[in-house]
Amino acid sequence: MSAGLWKSVLVTGSSRGLGLQLVTELARSSNRPGIIIATARDPTTSTGLQELSKTYPGVHILKLDVDNQQSISSALEEVKSIVGNKGLNCLINNAAIGSSVDLNSVTPEAMMKTFQTNSVSPLFVSKTFLPLLQTAAAQSSGMGIHRAAVINISSILGSIESNWGESANLKSYAYRTSKAALNMVTRCLAVDLGSDGILCMSLHPGWVKTDMGGPHADLTVEESVSGMLSVLSSLTEDDHGGFKDYRGQKLPW
Amino acid sequence: MSAGLWKSVLVTGSSRGLGLQLVTELARSSNRPGIIIATARDPTTSTGLQELSKTYPGVHILKLDVDNQQSISSALEEVKSIVGNKGLNCLINNAAIGSSVDLNSVTPEAMMKTFQTNSVSPLFVSKTFLPLLQTAAAQSSGMGIHRAAVINISSILGSIESNWGESANLKSYAYRTSKAALNMVTRCLAVDLGSDGILCMSLHPGWVKTDMGGPHADLTVEESVSGMLSVLSSLTEDDHGGFKDYRGQKLPW
Repeated sequence: MSAGLWKSVLVTGSSRGLGLQLVTELARSSNRPGIIIATARDPTTSTGLQELSKTYPGVHILKLDVDNQQSISSALEEVKSIVGNKGLNCLINNAAIGSSVDLNSVTPEAMMKTFQTNSVSPLFVSKTFLPLLQTAAAQSSGMGIHRAAVINISSILGSIESNWGESANLKSYAYRTSKAALNMVTRCLAVDLGSDGILCMSLHPGWVKTDMGGPHADLTVEESVSGMLSVLSSLTEDDHGGFKDYRGQKLPW
Repeated sequence: MSAGLWKSVLVTGSSRGLGLQLVTELARSSNRPGIIIATARDPTTSTGLQELSKTYPGVHILKLDVDNQQSISSALEEVKSIVGNKGLNCLINNAAIGSSVDLNSVTPEAMMKTFQTNSVSPLFVSKTFLPLLQTAAAQSSGMGIHRAAVINISSILGSIESNWGESANLKSYAYRTSKAALNMVTRCLAVDLGSDGILCMSLHPGWVKTDMGGPHADLTVEESVSGMLSVLSSLTEDDHGGFKDYRGQKLPW
């Protein structure tokens, strides 16, 4: 991974699971980004983030509740003072909730709550941090994490096309619709931010052994994050508005 | 149109626009469905529905607020007494809201409200009416409106793939994400209801001169509805879990 490509990166939902592994892997990289910002709804309760800050004191750990606009705006002010006039190169919208709800158990409340966190919040985090991404984009050319990027951590479960046959065995009305909606958010943002030179894409981390993915998943968090960082480091304008998995394979919407 | 194919049909959001035209066209058809149920949030305020009931007194007009589970459940009881042991052949989830909101004007509230009405409500109307669709499906074979079907009125604006280039000119974060999410609901329902013989699909009515579509749209409501009814009358199992437009053209997700 050529982590030296990006000067600054912010990850939401980094208290555990994929988010924690993403900031940890970035911090231990030999050519780590100059500025790593790990955010979480409540960093003080995350053992992982506490350990990370002891091992890598240079990592910035901030409170950011993605479901709360006031919290997003407060985090923006803190990030501004950290990145200064260089702006922010990469925003990784990773915070998400998930549960398995079939037709029998699904409720309107589960649909609304999951849509809020997984689809609406990434849009408003992106919108709020847009000025910092634009600042970074204005200082470079081409497309990729060396310039400016919004990476939405989506899921193959949000692929409408793939939700058929054996791939449809995992029932989750709330999670699947929220990730399909997030993919549309990605696409809308790509349309709007492309002319600023800000790359936007959806990234599927694979089925990972986390609290959300469960113990029977295919991949360790290390395998997933290693793959995702490799994909991120080689993004070009061809990836703008696209949907890939942690191996760099293109996925259908 | 072979409207005689279906014995009973229920349309949500039929107070005006496409919904009103759908029930009107069905009512005036020479081989009309035996039972036509036009529902709306508040039928008493719809001039169109009042006129329809004078001209075609056989059409059932019911109150159904798709955003209110109690209202959906009350309507179910009324529909049960209308269709009896024949069940319901076709549920058309047409009720929807829409507005044009770009990145600058979009709010979390607009995202949530549009998702509720356009994505969540069709799921819970379908779930509530499922026993009546299953009753109808048990009395026939094959797939199509002669047996049982859930038709979700979606939009090409919900196609993630198509939201690019010139097709992306219409900005609407809330509407686009809600219709992409509805397409996932269609697909989830198709996976779950296929074994019962209930066909589920998303249907794009075209860009229509309605209150929602505006005066510069391509099609009159008559053209759109005529096309949609033609598509509906010729549905087969090949359409199950699919996305078509009013001309019968397959659309990308």
